[in-house]
Amino acid sequence: MSAAEETAGGEDMPWGEVTPEAARRLLVAAVDAFAERGYHATTTRDIASRAGMSPAALYIHYKTKEELLHRISRIGHDKALEILEAAAGGPGSAAERLADAVRSFVRWHAERHTTARVVQYELDALGPEHRTEIVELRRKSDAAVRRIISEGVRAGEFDVPDVPGTTLAVLSLCIDVARWFNAQGRRTPDEVGELYADLVLRMVGAQK
Amino acid sequence: MSAAEETAGGEDMPWGEVTPEAARRLLVAAVDAFAERGYHATTTRDIASRAGMSPAALYIHYKTKEELLHRISRIGHDKALEILEAAAGGPGSAAERLADAVRSFVRWHAERHTTARVVQYELDALGPEHRTEIVELRRKSDAAVRRIISEGVRAGEFDVPDVPGTTLAVLSLCIDVARWFNAQGRRTPDEVGELYADLVLRMVGAQK
Repeated sequence: MSAAEETAGGEDMPWGEVTPEAARRLLVAAVDAFAERGYHATTTRDIASRAGMSPAALYIHYKTKEELLHRISRIGHDKALEILEAAAGGPGSAAERLADAVRSFVRWHAERHTTARVVQYELDALGPEHRTEIVELRRKSDAAVRRIISEGVRAGEFDVPDVPGTTLAVLSLCIDVARWFNAQGRRTPDEVGELYADLVLRMVGAQK
Repeated sequence: MSAAEETAGGEDMPWGEVTPEAARRLLVAAVDAFAERGYHATTTRDIASRAGMSPAALYIHYKTKEELLHRISRIGHDKALEILEAAAGGPGSAAERLADAVRSFVRWHAERHTTARVVQYELDALGPEHRTEIVELRRKSDAAVRRIISEGVRAGEFDVPDVPGTTLAVLSLCIDVARWFNAQGRRTPDEVGELYADLVLRMVGAQK
């Protein structure tokens, strides 16, 4: 599935925050080009052509190819952080919040796997300042999950010998869904989310 | 860490099966180039130049860039299968064998993370026949882990409602180590292996 197809489906309009429409179309074209050929093999000319626009029209919206990657990465990481902080700050026990975080985070990585691959695999192509900004967002996402797990341990709900290591493993398990998920496969994003929420509750030794 | 540096360390000589030495040097150069810039952005000229050789010298050993990728992918997947089948067929309880599989598989993805990234992320760049061959090796790796889990369930050692889904999650967790592992980070490959073996035993509800 391409980013263009991801845009067609889904509950809320992906990239809805990107305006005007030409800027959004270029962004979706960039995601597809980066996912197919990699960042370094993609030219701004390729991106403009995929979007049915001229290179000159692209430069009105984005000064460089790196600016496109940064915009994609920033929106993806903002969304990830929003999902995880909403779960961390939500109602319910630590187990309910952790299950909620995993379900939503997995669903995002499954439904938006083309975008998620670009966001996850092209970090090294960001310029130093943009990279620092994105690393900080990733630190906050990690902190949101660590907070739920720590609260569960403190409340006696979870049994976790290594909280930072388990946090890393939980996030890693969810992120890797973007690598293997196949929209034509046997499991829907919701089914993977349910399975993974159960597996993660086992990882933290949640009381049943 | 580059593939060249991976070659320098490690218990057994990586790519030792690739001879003559010029063919091995080209393969290591290809891994580093693909990991840095992606398969599509890399030319055979880049690879030859990294290996300190001429493009003509490269063509003596590899007819196409895809042949290099296939060789890398084949060796990586053979190694993965060897690790997992050795663990599956080893002595001990299902819990011991599963822990052994996870420890070895994680260690490989951590120590050889540059190679593993190329092996995992560039599957789509393989030609159709090579892709079919590699998909078959992945199916066998999956079967080796599924076998250990099924045996544990049958022996009453494990409690696993969804064996194929849990198998997928276990492999995915280990594979994603290649994405985040950092040789300068806080955890050694062995430490990640120990942590993950414990988390996976929890995922399968192993009796303590």
